[in-house]
Amino acid sequence: MLIECVPNFSEGARPDVIKAIVAKVRSESGVRILDLQSDASHNRSVLTLAGDPDSLARGVLALVSACLGAIDLRTHRGEHPRLGAVDVIPFIPLEGATIKDCIDLARRSGEAIAKTHGIPVFLYEDAASAPHRRGLEDIRRGQFEGLAAKLKDPLWAPDFGPSEPHPSFGAVVVGARMPLIAFNVNLNTDDVEVAKKIARGIRNSTGGFRFVKAMGLLVEIGGRRVAQVSMNMTDFTKTPLFRVVETIRNEAARHGVSIAGSEIVGLVPAQALLDSAEHYLQLTGFSSAQVLESRLRAE
Amino acid sequence: MLIECVPNFSEGARPDVIKAIVAKVRSESGVRILDLQSDASHNRSVLTLAGDPDSLARGVLALVSACLGAIDLRTHRGEHPRLGAVDVIPFIPLEGATIKDCIDLARRSGEAIAKTHGIPVFLYEDAASAPHRRGLEDIRRGQFEGLAAKLKDPLWAPDFGPSEPHPSFGAVVVGARMPLIAFNVNLNTDDVEVAKKIARGIRNSTGGFRFVKAMGLLVEIGGRRVAQVSMNMTDFTKTPLFRVVETIRNEAARHGVSIAGSEIVGLVPAQALLDSAEHYLQLTGFSSAQVLESRLRAE
Repeated sequence: MLIECVPNFSEGARPDVIKAIVAKVRSESGVRILDLQSDASHNRSVLTLAGDPDSLARGVLALVSACLGAIDLRTHRGEHPRLGAVDVIPFIPLEGATIKDCIDLARRSGEAIAKTHGIPVFLYEDAASAPHRRGLEDIRRGQFEGLAAKLKDPLWAPDFGPSEPHPSFGAVVVGARMPLIAFNVNLNTDDVEVAKKIARGIRNSTGGFRFVKAMGLLVEIGGRRVAQVSMNMTDFTKTPLFRVVETIRNEAARHGVSIAGSEIVGLVPAQALLDSAEHYLQLTGFSSAQVLESRLRAE
Repeated sequence: MLIECVPNFSEGARPDVIKAIVAKVRSESGVRILDLQSDASHNRSVLTLAGDPDSLARGVLALVSACLGAIDLRTHRGEHPRLGAVDVIPFIPLEGATIKDCIDLARRSGEAIAKTHGIPVFLYEDAASAPHRRGLEDIRRGQFEGLAAKLKDPLWAPDFGPSEPHPSFGAVVVGARMPLIAFNVNLNTDDVEVAKKIARGIRNSTGGFRFVKAMGLLVEIGGRRVAQVSMNMTDFTKTPLFRVVETIRNEAARHGVSIAGSEIVGLVPAQALLDSAEHYLQLTGFSSAQVLESRLRAE
C-alpha cells in the first residue's frame, strides 16, 4: 500500500536548516522523498514523501521532532499563513490505498505527535471530526498569533493534545484528502467570456460538479490569446476527467467553439487517465489488475 | 529498464520436472516470475518473466541449461509444434525499454546460448536477420524432426551456433516483439456479417491497419448472441487502440449498429490505455513522466 504525504513546514529561508530537517526525516523513516520546494518570502517548505503507512508515521514524527528543535514560531515571519512549525500534514492515497487508510493514518499520526511532544493537533479535510473543521483555511484563521484564544473556544478544541499552543511550535493540522489534479482545457476562441461561462457551469461553487474548482482565464500560448477553463479536480474518482471534458465540449459547442487541447499541470495518478481510457474505449469488466505494470508491482 | 520475456519450453506433463526447471531459473537469475502455464496435451509450458536485461540474459541461459538436462526432443510428443527443448524466447519491451533494447538482448542471449551449449539459434520477428525469417511459423515449419535437413538449406542457416541440431535439444528461436493486446469490441447486433465486414476493413491482411489481426465472431454474452470484432493488436504504439475503436464505431454506424462495449483479455501495458486517454482528453504536451506512479518508480 502506497500513500503520499505532503507536509508543509515553516522554514524556507535557511538552506542548512532545511537540509538538516529533510536528512532527519530520511534517516529515521526510510520514506522516499520525491520533492522539496522552499520559498524564502513565504518562509515555508513543501516536502513530498511516499511510502507505506508505518514509514510515513515515522517520517512525520521525525519531521515534527526536527522542526521542534529548529523553528520558533514566536520569531517566525513569512507571507504565507501558518499555525505551527510543521503547519499541515495531508495524507493522500496512491496505489492500493484508500481515503480510509489515509484517515486512519492521519488519526494515528496526529495522536502520536500530541502524545510525544505535547503539541495540539487538528484533524482536517476527510479526517475532520466535524463539518466546520474540514477546511484548512478555517482552522488556520487567526494564525499562530491567535492560536491561544482560538483553542479556548469549544468549537476549536484540538482533536489531540493540550488546549494551549506549544510555546515555540504552535499547533499542527493533520488530515487526509484525495490527490489534486490541475487540469486546463483550452478553447478555440480568444473570448474569455465563453471560458468564464463554462467555468461557472462546471464548478461546484456555482452549481456544477461536486469535485471541480474552475475559473475562466485568457492565457497566451505560442503568441496567441486563448480562452482557458482552468480547473482543480479535487476527487477524480467521483468527478472523473472524462465527464468534465464532455460537458465542456457540449457547452463550448453551444457558443460555436471547440476544444483546442487540454493540459495536465504537474503530476496525475495513473488511475485518472485509465478511467478516461476505459470510458472512451467502452471497456466492460475491466480491472486495473489487468494493467501489466500493476501486476509487476504486485509481485 | 524493464523487459518481459515469455519463453515456451517443451514439457507440460511432468509437474516435478517443470517445478525444478522454474526453480533453477529463479535461483540463478533473480528475475521475477509472473506466470507459468503448463498444458499436458501440448506437452509445453509458457513462462512469463520480467527483469532488467542482465537478469533476463542469466534467466534464459539458466532455462536452456535446465531444459537441456531434463528434456529429450527425440522422445518428446505433444500436440503443439516445436523445434527445441526450449522452443521460443521472445523479449518484449515494458517500462523504459524500447524494441531496440529487446533486439539487442535477443542477439546477446542467442549468441550466449549457442556458445555455451552448442545449440543452433534462429532470430525471429523484430530481431530477424532477413525478412523471410521473421515469422515463427516459417522457422518452425518441419519441426524438430525436419530440423537437420532444414539447417542444410542456406536460407535457413542458424544465426548463431552449429548447422546441425543439438541431438537432444534441437534448436531455439529467440526474438523481440511488441506486447500483444487481445482486444474485443462487441456490437449491438446479432448479425455476425456486420462484425466480419468490419474485421475485414480494419485488419492488415485485407487492407486495414498494419498492426491489427481481426475476425468477426458470434459470441454469447449473458445468454444473448452478440456479434464481436475479435482482435490482436500487435503494436499499440503504431496502431493505437483509439484509432481502431473510432474506425469500428464509424463502420458499425454505416450498418445502423453501435458499439455495445469492449473488452481486454489478459494483460495490457499501461501506455496503451494512457495513449487512449491522451487522445480522448485532447492532452497536449503531456509526458508519461507526469504519471505519479512512474515518478515514484523512477526514484
